[in-house]
Amino acid sequence: MTKRPETEGGPDTGEGQGHVDPVVLEAMQLALDDEDRIGLVRQLHEMHPADASDTLEQLSSDDFAELIGLLGDDFPASVLVELRDEYRAVAVEMLSDRTITAVLPDIDSDDAAALLEDVEEDRRARILEELDPKDRATLQQALDFDEETAGRLMQREFVAAPEFWTVGHTIDHARKTGDGLPEQFFEIYVVDPGFKVLGAVSLPLLLRTPREVKLASIMAGIKAQITTQMDQEEVAFLFQKYSLASAPVVDDAGRITGMITVDDMVDVIQNENTEDLLALSGVRSADGSDTVWDSVKARAPWLGINLFTAFFASGIISLFEPVLSAYVALAVLMPVVAALGGNAGGQALTVTVRAIAEREMEGAAARRAIRRETLTGLANGMIFALGVGAITLLWFGNVTLAGTISIAILATFVWGGFAGIMVPLVLQRLGVDPAVASSVFLLTLTDTMAFFSFLGLATLVLL
Amino acid sequence: MTKRPETEGGPDTGEGQGHVDPVVLEAMQLALDDEDRIGLVRQLHEMHPADASDTLEQLSSDDFAELIGLLGDDFPASVLVELRDEYRAVAVEMLSDRTITAVLPDIDSDDAAALLEDVEEDRRARILEELDPKDRATLQQALDFDEETAGRLMQREFVAAPEFWTVGHTIDHARKTGDGLPEQFFEIYVVDPGFKVLGAVSLPLLLRTPREVKLASIMAGIKAQITTQMDQEEVAFLFQKYSLASAPVVDDAGRITGMITVDDMVDVIQNENTEDLLALSGVRSADGSDTVWDSVKARAPWLGINLFTAFFASGIISLFEPVLSAYVALAVLMPVVAALGGNAGGQALTVTVRAIAEREMEGAAARRAIRRETLTGLANGMIFALGVGAITLLWFGNVTLAGTISIAILATFVWGGFAGIMVPLVLQRLGVDPAVASSVFLLTLTDTMAFFSFLGLATLVLL
Repeated sequence: MTKRPETEGGPDTGEGQGHVDPVVLEAMQLALDDEDRIGLVRQLHEMHPADASDTLEQLSSDDFAELIGLLGDDFPASVLVELRDEYRAVAVEMLSDRTITAVLPDIDSDDAAALLEDVEEDRRARILEELDPKDRATLQQALDFDEETAGRLMQREFVAAPEFWTVGHTIDHARKTGDGLPEQFFEIYVVDPGFKVLGAVSLPLLLRTPREVKLASIMAGIKAQITTQMDQEEVAFLFQKYSLASAPVVDDAGRITGMITVDDMVDVIQNENTEDLLALSGVRSADGSDTVWDSVKARAPWLGINLFTAFFASGIISLFEPVLSAYVALAVLMPVVAALGGNAGGQALTVTVRAIAEREMEGAAARRAIRRETLTGLANGMIFALGVGAITLLWFGNVTLAGTISIAILATFVWGGFAGIMVPLVLQRLGVDPAVASSVFLLTLTDTMAFFSFLGLATLVLL
Repeated sequence: MTKRPETEGGPDTGEGQGHVDPVVLEAMQLALDDEDRIGLVRQLHEMHPADASDTLEQLSSDDFAELIGLLGDDFPASVLVELRDEYRAVAVEMLSDRTITAVLPDIDSDDAAALLEDVEEDRRARILEELDPKDRATLQQALDFDEETAGRLMQREFVAAPEFWTVGHTIDHARKTGDGLPEQFFEIYVVDPGFKVLGAVSLPLLLRTPREVKLASIMAGIKAQITTQMDQEEVAFLFQKYSLASAPVVDDAGRITGMITVDDMVDVIQNENTEDLLALSGVRSADGSDTVWDSVKARAPWLGINLFTAFFASGIISLFEPVLSAYVALAVLMPVVAALGGNAGGQALTVTVRAIAEREMEGAAARRAIRRETLTGLANGMIFALGVGAITLLWFGNVTLAGTISIAILATFVWGGFAGIMVPLVLQRLGVDPAVASSVFLLTLTDTMAFFSFLGLATLVLL
């Protein structure tokens, strides 16, 4: 997403820079209520496209749809590209084939592919048909790659030069090509006659090197070899690790076919982070534009699993009905063991899931972490066994009860720490995303331990 | 962190690209065991600094310290800069003043400031004293800015040119300046005689524009006005929103004083994401190198608060001892209400915290979200009231009990959805980070509702 109109004039310098301006939003709402087509178009063009899209996303879904219907072909392409997936899908759905066809050649191929992702098969074929053959072929190739791969993310526009070119010749050539160059690029790829990448020359290096020097003698090696099939998460990891601004993408034969820039990776990183965070809370997806029904669909499945694990825990409790009938204090206290133990385990789980995502949980590091988490469980377990025991003793004045809950806390904490790291590690080994399924397993394990240890021990010593 | 040695030769193309190679790690461990100084230095120099630092971070803390002790002044500066904070602090602690002093002028000013952050006051003064006056002044200024602000993050190295320069003159000047230019930059800032930023010319634009064109006539406006005091999170938000590769940083008078590049922002984004994720689970900080004691310190405080909220919930349960004594089934079932209600609320909470972090919870969007979350709670509440009621009826064969738990589930879900969005929104209004304190408040609220509604209703209808 590197193509941007160049906004003239100074930026706003206020505190709320980059945030939606309520005054602008209200003006837009008013213009919409008045069906003031021209006013709306002017407003959208006056704003930076990123600001325009953010403002539009503040409208209710109905108002947004109304606006798209009102503007039709006058809806600015630059804003369309900036919209969040859900809003863009709505807009693309409503806009005419003609508008979409007109927009596609003006935007980078990665943005164009993202736009067409939302379009149903038949219509997509129709729209592709309308494009000129070169644009069509480029776009079709991009769409042939799986979603969330480097091939889908990359843009086809990049700058390559043979190794025998000099700095001067390269600059002259760039000047001659002019608008044929991509809007934004950070390095020039040096290629052999078969388009294999030999190295890269950063633009600052190109600028500061004497004209007669050959590219081959100043190029640097490529730090990360990115192939078209590589998963976007892996690409983001490499960008981050090697602080890349851009990287060439090569096909199976090692030929350069595209380029990925860091600004696209920033979006990928944010999305992957959001996915992990939501998955840990049992939410499948979330967006500000979700309807209630979307939210229910995204959340009910995990609650459904939780329904069974909760009743499983109840089943364990019911095994101890005799002691619960005799000592109602146990019913009062058992949620304390479950809550604290579950939270201690959840802490270990979150730390582990994050470390896995940041590739810090490999080999020796994993073994050390298992030891650390179990010992942390033991240490916190001792601290909170004492605390919970003391409060119980003060409250119920029963030493046996206090001793029982203390031991149960200790056992649940150690178990929680161990399970908190083992569950995600094992899931990862099995090829399951540890962020998605870990929580439900962990809570079942800690609940089981909490109720078994507390009520089981109570049965032994109190009955 | 834009300064990088240019590695020659091809990249590895294997699957595990960018991951720590176990063979390399073992070789390093062996060399360390043999105290093979020269072998270690060679190994570290042969790797990309990012790979070298990742490999070193796989060593145990003791081994890492031993290695630093062994290598001393031969420890490569490029690797030092790449190490994670905790490891870097250990290394800086062990290395001599002379080594640190020698390293500082070779690295970008933002990296140098980060390095000195770890150093205690006295020693820092001593090291600064050793630098030449220009380097010292630059570094001292960077350190004078608060941590996590743009001033601390920015590098002092940037390229600025007056508006009347032509493209040709600018390129010639860059070539003459040569190594005096920053290693990496993406645009040239056009400034007036008072060093106020008038606009920016991207390097691709510079390359493709005829030599005689003036910078003033091709420069684009600055999209985001970043001041030295701006919080790094705000800076990251602007980089993301406007897909910036770099941005100038200006002082109070609007004069350019530095530059921030996107690769530094990627690190900030990752760190902020990690913080939010961990905070939601009640972990203050986490790192692979943490000792057990560090982990306990990072986690015990939240468990301590949870101890009191858990006993608060127990207190509520104890209000209903009569009905619990009479119907042990209530004790068996009450964790189901608490667990499901807590999870439903937690889902709403996570979605809200994420939306706040991504600046999608402002004005009209917040109002719509409150409605959506409450209705989602109602919808899921009805679904799970039916499910839990049915299972309870099958299990206990008691219609009144089944009806009671159904109503309690419904009430807790609606309340959980509402509280799940209101708690973080209110905390945000109060200026508290919603990621940090939300969970504990929410669980207290849902537990209270779960136990009150279930046991309270049971008292009314069963006793």
